[in-house]
Formats: sequence, C-alpha cells, structure tokens
Amino acid sequence: MLVQKYKEMLSEKSVIRQLSEFAGARGREIGYENVFDFSLGNPSVPVPREFTEEMIHMLVSEEPAFLHGYSPSLGITQVREAVAASLERRFGIPYRTEHIFMASGAAGALAHAFRLVAEPGDEIVAFAPFFPEYRPYVDLMGARLKVVPADTESFQINFEALEELLSPRVTAVLINTPNNPSGIAYSTATLKKLAELLRDKSEEYHHEIYLISDEPYREIVFEGVDAPCVSWFYDNTIMCYSFSKSLSLPGERIGYVAVNPGCREAETMVNMCGQISRGIGHNCPPSIIQLAVAKVLDKTADLKVYETNMKLLYNALGALGFSCVKPDGTFYIFPKALEEDAKLFCQKALKYDLILVPGDTFGVPGYFRMAYCMDTEKIKRSLPALCRFVQEEYGHAR
Amino acid sequence: MLVQKYKEMLSEKSVIRQLSEFAGARGREIGYENVFDFSLGNPSVPVPREFTEEMIHMLVSEEPAFLHGYSPSLGITQVREAVAASLERRFGIPYRTEHIFMASGAAGALAHAFRLVAEPGDEIVAFAPFFPEYRPYVDLMGARLKVVPADTESFQINFEALEELLSPRVTAVLINTPNNPSGIAYSTATLKKLAELLRDKSEEYHHEIYLISDEPYREIVFEGVDAPCVSWFYDNTIMCYSFSKSLSLPGERIGYVAVNPGCREAETMVNMCGQISRGIGHNCPPSIIQLAVAKVLDKTADLKVYETNMKLLYNALGALGFSCVKPDGTFYIFPKALEEDAKLFCQKALKYDLILVPGDTFGVPGYFRMAYCMDTEKIKRSLPALCRFVQEEYGHAR
Repeated sequence: MLVQKYKEMLSEKSVIRQLSEFAGARGREIGYENVFDFSLGNPSVPVPREFTEEMIHMLVSEEPAFLHGYSPSLGITQVREAVAASLERRFGIPYRTEHIFMASGAAGALAHAFRLVAEPGDEIVAFAPFFPEYRPYVDLMGARLKVVPADTESFQINFEALEELLSPRVTAVLINTPNNPSGIAYSTATLKKLAELLRDKSEEYHHEIYLISDEPYREIVFEGVDAPCVSWFYDNTIMCYSFSKSLSLPGERIGYVAVNPGCREAETMVNMCGQISRGIGHNCPPSIIQLAVAKVLDKTADLKVYETNMKLLYNALGALGFSCVKPDGTFYIFPKALEEDAKLFCQKALKYDLILVPGDTFGVPGYFRMAYCMDTEKIKRSLPALCRFVQEEYGHAR
Repeated sequence: MLVQKYKEMLSEKSVIRQLSEFAGARGREIGYENVFDFSLGNPSVPVPREFTEEMIHMLVSEEPAFLHGYSPSLGITQVREAVAASLERRFGIPYRTEHIFMASGAAGALAHAFRLVAEPGDEIVAFAPFFPEYRPYVDLMGARLKVVPADTESFQINFEALEELLSPRVTAVLINTPNNPSGIAYSTATLKKLAELLRDKSEEYHHEIYLISDEPYREIVFEGVDAPCVSWFYDNTIMCYSFSKSLSLPGERIGYVAVNPGCREAETMVNMCGQISRGIGHNCPPSIIQLAVAKVLDKTADLKVYETNMKLLYNALGALGFSCVKPDGTFYIFPKALEEDAKLFCQKALKYDLILVPGDTFGVPGYFRMAYCMDTEKIKRSLPALCRFVQEEYGHAR
C-alpha cells in the first residue's frame, strides 16, 4: 500500500540524470577533464571568501546554542531585516522585515508561493522554455501547469498564446528571468506589457492573478543588458530568490520569498508561509547559513567567467552555423539543433564526449541546452570537439 | 484569492507561542534569569566540540564547490552510508546506504514518511500525549489523524483504545518514544505487543500498516531505563530521526528517514522519498551540515544535565504533592495539574514567573508539561517559586 503516484514516478527516466550518469561513467573511462559535460547547472566559481570567513568567525566565537538554535518559522528576524534592507537599497522598493520569508532555496520558496495562491484545480501559467521541475512542483500539489509555447525568435513572451491560456481558473503566472535554459532576460517592454495584461485580466476576472517570479539567476546578467527588476512593474509579485547561483552554494539550501510591499495583504501572505511550512515539513533554512548569508547580501561569487564562456560559445556556435539567441545572463545557452529531433542530435553528440541536453526537457523540442558553468580553459578545449561533431555528423561547418 | 485554509490558521493562537511571548516580555521587565521558562524544548547544552572543529576544518580545507555543491536528492552518498553503518553498529539491524534518506530534521522526515504510506482520506493513528504539530502535518496533506487517548497511569499504550481505532482505513501508526511531552519510553513489552497487533491487523486488512517511529529523543535516555529500538520489533517500521536534540543543533535542520531493511520494498520507499521531495519543495539538508554530522554520528552533546534536572524536578514535584510518572528520557516531565483545568493552572503559575504548558496542547487535558533543558542552577532557583505557587494557590504543599 505504498502511495502509487510517487512509485510510478520512479519509472520515468530523467534525461538530465541519464546524461549525467553517462558523463560520470565516461569520465571514469577517459578522465573527467576529457568529457565536455554541458548538462549540469552547478556553479563553477567558489563562494565569496567573506562567506567562508563569516562562517568560521561564527563557529569560533558565537555561543553554539545561539548559532545552531531554532530559527523562528519565518526566518531569523535580523536576517529578514537585512534582506529587506538590501532589496530596498538595490531596487528602491520599500521592503520591510514583514515582507520576507526565508526559504530552503528556490524549491522551498516556490513551494510556498504556489500554495499561497493556488488550490487543487487552479491553474498556474508558465512559459516555455521552462525549468522541468516546475511540472512536478505544481502537479504534486494538485494545481495544473499550463504552458505558453516559446517565442523562439527572441525567447521573450508570446503574448497571443498567453492571452489564449488566461482564464478565470488561472491564479498565478510563473516567470523565470533571466531564464533557464534560454539565458534570456525579459526586457522592460516585455514586463510592462505582461503587467498591463495581468492587471486587465485581474479586473476582468474579479480576482488577483499573482506573478510568481523565480529569480535564482538575477545576479548573473551580462554587460549592457536590459534586465529590470520584475517587482517594479506589478504590485502582486511574489519574488522567489535563491542564493544558490549568485553565491555558489546550491547545496546549502538558502533563499527567500519577498512579497511586494504593494501587494494587498503582503504581511498576511508572509505569515501564511509559516503555516504552509507546517504542512510540507519545511522548517526554515539552516540557522548558521541564514546568519552567514546575511553578512554577504550585496556580494556575489566572481561571476564574470560565465560571460567570458558565453561569448566563446556564442561565437563558436554561430561560426558553426547554429541559430541561437544571444544570452543576456545565467550560464546557459539554448541553440537550435541541427536536425529536427534534438534528442537524436544530443545522442549523436555523445560520441564526441559532448553532453548536451535536448530542449524537449524544457518544453521546446528542436533546441538544446548547454550549461557553461566550467573553467574557460575547458570551454576552449571543447570547441574542436564541437567542430568535429558538426562536420562529421552534419557536414556543413564553415 | 489567497488560499483560505492557511489564512484561517493565522487566527488560531498557539498556546506555546503565547507563553513564550509572555516569557520574553517578562524577561525584558525583570531579567531573563528570573523567568522560569519551562515552555520551550530548545537544547541547552552545546553541540559537541568535534562538530564545530569538523565544520571549521572543512571550511578551511575543502574545495568550496564540493563543500557547498548540490547534494543528490536522497542525500550525500557517503553520509547515507555512514548513517547506515552507525545504525547497524548500534542496533544490529543490517541498514545499508539504500535504506537511508537524508531529511531536513524530523519535520522533513515525517513529511516524507506520511506521504510514502498515506493518501488523502487515509488514517494515521497517533497516541496522546503527542507533539501538537502532528495535527497540521497530517491535516494539511489531507490524511486524517486519529488519536488514542492516553494511559495516564504509565503513558505506555492504551491497547484497548488502540484496537477500537484500527480499521482498514488506517495505513500508519505514529509513535514517539521517548515521548514529548511525557518523557516516557515505550518498554519492550509495549513494543512487542504493538508489533503483534499491527501484524495481526495487517493480515486481517490485507495491507501493511506501517509503523512511523518519530525518534528525535532516542539518545536522551536515563540510566537503567528499558528503551529499546523500535525497529527491532516490527519490519514495516519507518524510523524518522533528527539530530536536533542529540547534537543540540535544532536550527540546522538535519535528520533522516531510515526504512527498516526488513520492510518489503525498502529501497523503493527510499527512492520514493526523492520524488516526494519534488512535490513539497524539500531539497535535502544543507550539504556542509550533512558532511559534518557524518563525522560525529556516534557522539552526542553532553546530555547528562537533563537527567540531573529531571531528578531535581521529579523529587520536588513529588514533595509538593503532584502526581507524576517519572520520565525515562527527553527533557520533559508531564505532571498532573493541581486543578482540573490545566489552562487555568498554568495561567496562575505565570504570577510566579513559572511558564508551564497545559496538557490540552498535547491531547491530555488536566496535565502540564515542563521542559527542563536549562542550567541546573536555574532549575534549583525555580523550586522556591514552584513551592510558593503551590502553597499560595492550592495551600497544600507539604
């Protein structure tokens, strides 16, 4: 009498996991340095030195019972206060302590955001390409994920398709900018238009449509890019943030929900997060990590390698004849495959020890994702393999 | 259109929180050292020195990308392996890596255990007195919590009442030994009888009834007490463990689910935990804490103060005329109040700066809980206040 829905999920094969297992096995065979594993979005640059120093300082000097003690259910008060102050400084929005809920990474933050505004049967609209975990996140809480097809010209929003999907059953729209996997950030024009549409539809349906903004890549934006703060445009925005990528500590499970102060009942929503936690076994991010992160809120890991890598890959892909929208940020690029079936394309790439992820995984067949969070030296070494792959399999490299 | 069920929970007043707020306010008034706050189960002894040393050692010497990197969804493999080996060493049960799922404290572990074996509409049976969070944990996932009334003579199991509650709808029985709030551990005789009954009923109903064993107090057992390992008696046992109390790090959110190797499909159950996580935004305990805890699995904080405190309180309460079952472990004691209405009793105690929690909170009206995780010196200073309280309010102290 084990619960069938979870048992059945075990037989679904995760493409990314299979690829990563292949990469591991191949690495043991020919040396990891010779496998060009573009499958995993694991930060490659170290956490800022100040974080490590702060951790050591606290371990040496703080009272252990304080340092490792229970966090209040909404997060440690001075940490929430520091997050609010940092957001206000950065974005000019009057966030206060009562607008912040500390969460175990973006997964924890999203789990709370969804449950704040959607009940079983409600619909949440997302946009292809999208992070594949959105589907189980939403399915398993009983709500329904509706997906707007990609605008593959720009990876901004296909507004016509969005309007068709909006209905009174939609309680939230979920965006991720800069985006995994496209690397594209929504522009000011896109966000303005989205906000207008959601305001109109909220009025038409006589209920709020909340904008859930999943922002783990917020700090990884390349030079000269227009990547504005989502919460500037729409009051009913629930920001879900994770420090995983900006501080390079994905394993430490730390992030937050920031409810826009312009949201009606913003403070109630944060308090509701504390109740939602009780139902899902969430119990605040680790105390010591909360305290350490609060000391480095305005710092990031040294992220410039990602832009260097992006340029190398973007230029090489272009030279090899790939069609590709230039990323605005993140450490992903999402080119069009050289044949219709991207799964087949990625399968063939394995022969060249290139691990690429088919776009089907992200709701956009025919494309593929490369995660370039690795040493630039390795990116450079991968280019000849990429070139050989294209020449030998598709015979039309320039 | 905020989700009503969570919004409505905000108006329920948590008794423990109110008491703790009172204690805080009173502390600011007369000094915290003069408030005898028996309301909170927050460990008072420091984490073992070895844990802190291990944390510092890793921060100084490990590659940050490894140290803070993503944990696999079931937990870091060598940590699971170490937990399994430690359990086998301790209890002689052949646990292996594949039987262990690392979870964010007991709350995270229980959230997974419940979802493994209960669907909305199924029933989970617990025993009064019980940790009050069991109710929202179970309610919010849609299952139903049925409570067996307390056997207040011994705080072992009232088997007659249990048999009445068992039915084909029951998929799990939830126990907590040593128990919060009674401090009582289930004896070998109790666990044997429980296992027999569950085996009989499983056969009768043609489906397993799982035993979910919530064991955060497993390591806090007093001298000479019979507090056997629950998993010895019943194959279909899902052990939910937390290091919060044994290592004094409740804020770091670290524990595990250990599925009894004797359980049919034990390995599948652990793999299912990884799927359950996706639905509830759980994403493994923090990597650095997993790694550090793995190095001190067979250590505990210096727990002996709890037994010292228990003896002082147990003797004092007895001398003052309280009826009380002597605790076997934990840092709680659960005496009978001196009047029928324990809420009124605890209200009156506040005048003497004694913060006690009414047993109603734990499903046993007429009793009250004292958490004695504090310095022995403070316990000693509390005794005159306790004596004055009893004399002045009830006039029958010896």
